[in-house]
Amino acid sequence: MRMKIDAVDPASRARATTFYTDHGTVLTPVFMPVGSIGTVKTLSPEDLSGAGVQIMLANTYHLYLKPGLDILEKAGGLHKFIHWSRPILTDSGGFQVYSLNELRKVTEEGVEFKSHWDGSRHFFTPPKVVDIQRVIGSDIILTLDYCVPNPSDETTARHAHFLTLEWAKTARHYFLSGSPLYGFQQFQFAVIQGGIYPELRKQSIDQLGELDFDGYAIGGLAVGESLEMRNQITEFCVSRMPELKTRYLMGVGTPGDVLDAIERGVDMFDCVIPTRNARNGTLFISTGKLVIRNAEYKDDFQPVDPECDCYCCRHFSRAYLRHLFNVNEILGLRLATYHNVHFYMKLVKQAREAIMDGAFIKFKNHFLEKFSSGGKD
Amino acid sequence: MRMKIDAVDPASRARATTFYTDHGTVLTPVFMPVGSIGTVKTLSPEDLSGAGVQIMLANTYHLYLKPGLDILEKAGGLHKFIHWSRPILTDSGGFQVYSLNELRKVTEEGVEFKSHWDGSRHFFTPPKVVDIQRVIGSDIILTLDYCVPNPSDETTARHAHFLTLEWAKTARHYFLSGSPLYGFQQFQFAVIQGGIYPELRKQSIDQLGELDFDGYAIGGLAVGESLEMRNQITEFCVSRMPELKTRYLMGVGTPGDVLDAIERGVDMFDCVIPTRNARNGTLFISTGKLVIRNAEYKDDFQPVDPECDCYCCRHFSRAYLRHLFNVNEILGLRLATYHNVHFYMKLVKQAREAIMDGAFIKFKNHFLEKFSSGGKD
Repeated sequence: MRMKIDAVDPASRARATTFYTDHGTVLTPVFMPVGSIGTVKTLSPEDLSGAGVQIMLANTYHLYLKPGLDILEKAGGLHKFIHWSRPILTDSGGFQVYSLNELRKVTEEGVEFKSHWDGSRHFFTPPKVVDIQRVIGSDIILTLDYCVPNPSDETTARHAHFLTLEWAKTARHYFLSGSPLYGFQQFQFAVIQGGIYPELRKQSIDQLGELDFDGYAIGGLAVGESLEMRNQITEFCVSRMPELKTRYLMGVGTPGDVLDAIERGVDMFDCVIPTRNARNGTLFISTGKLVIRNAEYKDDFQPVDPECDCYCCRHFSRAYLRHLFNVNEILGLRLATYHNVHFYMKLVKQAREAIMDGAFIKFKNHFLEKFSSGGKD
Repeated sequence: MRMKIDAVDPASRARATTFYTDHGTVLTPVFMPVGSIGTVKTLSPEDLSGAGVQIMLANTYHLYLKPGLDILEKAGGLHKFIHWSRPILTDSGGFQVYSLNELRKVTEEGVEFKSHWDGSRHFFTPPKVVDIQRVIGSDIILTLDYCVPNPSDETTARHAHFLTLEWAKTARHYFLSGSPLYGFQQFQFAVIQGGIYPELRKQSIDQLGELDFDGYAIGGLAVGESLEMRNQITEFCVSRMPELKTRYLMGVGTPGDVLDAIERGVDMFDCVIPTRNARNGTLFISTGKLVIRNAEYKDDFQPVDPECDCYCCRHFSRAYLRHLFNVNEILGLRLATYHNVHFYMKLVKQAREAIMDGAFIKFKNHFLEKFSSGGKD
């Protein structure tokens, strides 16, 4: 995958890069909203592009179960199926190894899942996960990985790292011997594991590095560790990861978490926080979090965020949004989701601009000072 | 209310008219989607105007309870509150007299409701309903009426007609002695009652006519009578209603019902059918109804309606919509609602064009023949 470094912040490892896919160019740092099953909940593709989304995330496991490969292949891939012409990254199902703990069994060959829809059994191997993502037609595919919670003991973390590495070898060779189905290129990222153990992370990074993937995801974080530990492991990983490959931190996070990781040199993010919080009525604004159901907003006719120029803030008041949530109307979920996704897009865009200006730390401090100033939680 | 008759069909009573409000001109026949509580479920105001909606309906009773008059007045009225700049009509709460049968008590003075939210008691009188609609700021307001189910015996129907008429007198005088709150004009329609009894309908029409309302709604239909009876009563009413006033048939209906009433000279309609059916996964297409959850659509990559040029049909397939419904995703409800609203807007627009061309009956027959040809129910 062609990528270039546009700027590195003089006072941190923060960097701005560009990478190129057949569905368009992506400027980093970049945040991917989560559209696991082929929709970022409540939003249309036009909403996503309108909010500034450059690339979205979808989920191999979920799409494999529904609508299933037969339909995705007949549709000509996920882009056509969902009417989204910008890049898509698909995670591998590895997160479901973690989150569906009761519904899966890991062996050396792969993972057996019991469908959360109907209990049917499905065996995912590293090549099968490549095949599935060929059918999905995502621009960036991930190798099957084994994600364990933090903290796990070193033996468990080593086993997860070891299996992830073996699977990555198989997956890389299999991927390189195959071809995409729909006439555009696909790229393959590996997932770094190793829990909270630097020595294991080091082995994971170095050995995955020999396989020359198109990019590298830091997995096994945002699964129970403290923020301090996450930052330490992220920093350690990035310091050993190849300079000229895209770095993706999976499942992170709050606005502060994202800025912490950008500072440490991460390029890509995904997280359900902006979308899930929106549906719970928690909105991100420049001064913090705003819980829209609170009675104080019932006659507050300001925009959700007076400093925001998104569709929601240009046209609707806090009072109207509160009303919509108060009477359980879908338009409320939709407007809140639009606003939160836009907030995250603006956050990483401004982070990039600050990096280009050599002033990331100043931007970060300014943002966080304001973000902790007046929001209500 | 200024209105003009643009054309009358030579072979039926169907007519095309134009009426004028301070929020814009409305071309009839016109269909109003229902946004009872300040949102047409799932859609944004831009979706509504994009789908061709000229005027929407909201509900006095619902808005009075939530968000309440205090908030609506502080917002500067419903248009500003919900960001909708085209006309709004509000019904009076009379339909809730019918639908909330267990939660209301009718006296000569008005109706006592028990809130369906919290059981609190609220007394609606004819002047109070005017006051509420002054605060809402709808372009067209309706008088409080007493709607009884069909068939009701003649005594019940006479009583409902009599109260509705008395309330209309009070409401008309009260309305004419007051002023709008927000600097634009409001118009007042009366509601004709009388059940299935032509003599009562005649009295209702003639006596309401003396009060010179801005328009007249036919109430007390679409509440249990046969289609044949509805058409008879509609035809009878229209034949006696003033030529130069807008005629609104409340709560109707299916595409066929709407065409039947247009043929009989009705100008305006509202109904939950397009929106509610959409959320149940029933889509209106040129060949009938399509139940999107059906297995046959799982790999059907045609648009919902190959003859439709709406946003949904231009970009998404039946297979994708089925997938969204199948996994309970909100975007499915939204796309289906958009399509059905657009379908109704196109239906009345084409009806108008046919009337202008003097060919309404031909249009109606052609539409219905096709509509009954291949849809699955």
